[in-house]
Amino acid sequence: MNYDADLPGHVERVLTRFLRIAGDQIEATEPSFASGVETLTEFVLRGGKRLRPTFAWWAWRGAGGDEADADGVLQAVASLELVQACALIHDDLIDSSDSRRGRPTVHVAFADLHTAQRWSGLPASFGLAVAVVIGDLALAWADDMFGAASLPAAALDRARPVWRAMRTEVLAGQFLDVHMQVTGDTSAEAALRVSRLKTAAYTVERPLHLGAALAGAPGEQVRALREFGRDLGIAFQLRDDLLGVFGDPSVTGKPAGDDLREGKRTLLIALALRQAGAAQADLITTALGNATLSEKEVDEVRATLREVGAVSAVEDRIGELTGTALSALRQANLIEPAESALADLATRATQRTH
Amino acid sequence: MNYDADLPGHVERVLTRFLRIAGDQIEATEPSFASGVETLTEFVLRGGKRLRPTFAWWAWRGAGGDEADADGVLQAVASLELVQACALIHDDLIDSSDSRRGRPTVHVAFADLHTAQRWSGLPASFGLAVAVVIGDLALAWADDMFGAASLPAAALDRARPVWRAMRTEVLAGQFLDVHMQVTGDTSAEAALRVSRLKTAAYTVERPLHLGAALAGAPGEQVRALREFGRDLGIAFQLRDDLLGVFGDPSVTGKPAGDDLREGKRTLLIALALRQAGAAQADLITTALGNATLSEKEVDEVRATLREVGAVSAVEDRIGELTGTALSALRQANLIEPAESALADLATRATQRTH
Repeated sequence: MNYDADLPGHVERVLTRFLRIAGDQIEATEPSFASGVETLTEFVLRGGKRLRPTFAWWAWRGAGGDEADADGVLQAVASLELVQACALIHDDLIDSSDSRRGRPTVHVAFADLHTAQRWSGLPASFGLAVAVVIGDLALAWADDMFGAASLPAAALDRARPVWRAMRTEVLAGQFLDVHMQVTGDTSAEAALRVSRLKTAAYTVERPLHLGAALAGAPGEQVRALREFGRDLGIAFQLRDDLLGVFGDPSVTGKPAGDDLREGKRTLLIALALRQAGAAQADLITTALGNATLSEKEVDEVRATLREVGAVSAVEDRIGELTGTALSALRQANLIEPAESALADLATRATQRTH
Repeated sequence: MNYDADLPGHVERVLTRFLRIAGDQIEATEPSFASGVETLTEFVLRGGKRLRPTFAWWAWRGAGGDEADADGVLQAVASLELVQACALIHDDLIDSSDSRRGRPTVHVAFADLHTAQRWSGLPASFGLAVAVVIGDLALAWADDMFGAASLPAAALDRARPVWRAMRTEVLAGQFLDVHMQVTGDTSAEAALRVSRLKTAAYTVERPLHLGAALAGAPGEQVRALREFGRDLGIAFQLRDDLLGVFGDPSVTGKPAGDDLREGKRTLLIALALRQAGAAQADLITTALGNATLSEKEVDEVRATLREVGAVSAVEDRIGELTGTALSALRQANLIEPAESALADLATRATQRTH
């Protein structure tokens, strides 16, 4: 079976099936867990670009993976969405984010339920508890779904070290990110390290690596694919940084300048501070993390980021990284249509408006 | 190699080795994660009875597991301590517990660090973030440690469904527990369901099941062992309920009557409420969850629990369950010294004073 044409649809289909079977199993023991399973299922199926499974899938196809393994590979790569569900649910809790994709985050939804039901204790404590447990469930089930993929033992054995590295790296990235926020480390070096772990490695490089490992790709091809992933991942993150400050709210779905209000220590900000004069740096750092920043103040920061050349520097860097990424992709010598699909993804990911 | 004589010591040895190797790997990519790895390592090695690995080990030995697999089995059963680390770190956060084994809990320790370093933002938010991430790391690494145990593929394949069920069950138990606390469900039925999931299944039955599965025990032996585990687990939890209210603080390390102040909905409380008159029930429910309960008030609740016959009912039930557990253990026909070791564990676990 070939799933190229509607990969996100097929990823959602196998996620739905896995979550139903795993849910039925535990509900046979403990029926009241149904609402927990339902919360996770709704969260996972609520949307998202299915970017990680898509990168993994094309790397597997492009490295000439055995068509007979397609169903197992689809399940293995779809499980990345459960790791991502844990990361998002726990990140939202850590960042105290109220909404995601236009809906309340898990901890907020359950705090609201607590209030509506007039339960005892604090709504926020209940929301926290549920978000911690449901995130843990997503992480545990990600492992179960990956490990239960119907694949030759050799293929799973090749992929497992990559899977493990990916999981640890995203947690290291989160740990580093949390430290950066509290220590106020605005250096470009720290921002780049977080980007490398949370986006380049976790979102692009490791999924590609995982797909290549499942296919049994030779070392040289794996290296070229990972290089493609590293450069593309950083470019992807830089585009995200720009959208977080300059993005159109009607397209991104987030308030304009939201990254500024949240005080995100991005590479864009780090570069701007490095190039800014004292007054400009002051304007930026004062705005950063000010939750009540007005539209006008956001506009002032935008103007300053342009003035000091940070915006054009980041745009240039995105262009360069996309170029080196695409050249690494060609070196990987993938079978078509994988090379074209990945080149297309790379272009869309770095030129996107949301 | 035979590890019977100092099982906890050997469990700690393999945990130390695994954590060092896994730590070295991620620190090669991200040196600043060292403090995260160190936090988890310290937490895991800080103590504990190593109860889950011990049950699993003796079930494997008693079911005649192949001596050649001893090292792999030791690693597989030791990984249960990492699942437990996640459960404890996240539970402490959910319950807002300040200390564990006489030391600050993870979220409190990092909130204190934040305060001492005068970092920006709220200390409690930083503590929460670190506890979430370090708990996640423990859960991810539990899976890595279990899956990387050097064992025949057939042995791991037999054990994996048990491992998966155990992880999901403890999360279902936690979810149910959190719901019980807020809905104020004081029924014996609800308390029993939480005990079954969080203690009977997770602490005793599933570890025994895991060891038996690793050994390739026949169905009948597995059934008998699980029956032993279920009854012993409930008896174990009932002893815990009694100690939480009547335990000697100098032995348990927790303030006297702590379970009352925390408002724990235990089976002891559920049975007492079922048997209490209106005034007695009122005294108990008013005390439950009152964080400022005095020594004298704790004494009144204790007297009431005795008066209504809940204490003797629970003691009787512990005796009965220990009896049926030991009879199931004999039916399991384990090879010695495993049968004696498990019988001894059962007696100590149900008669312990801390």
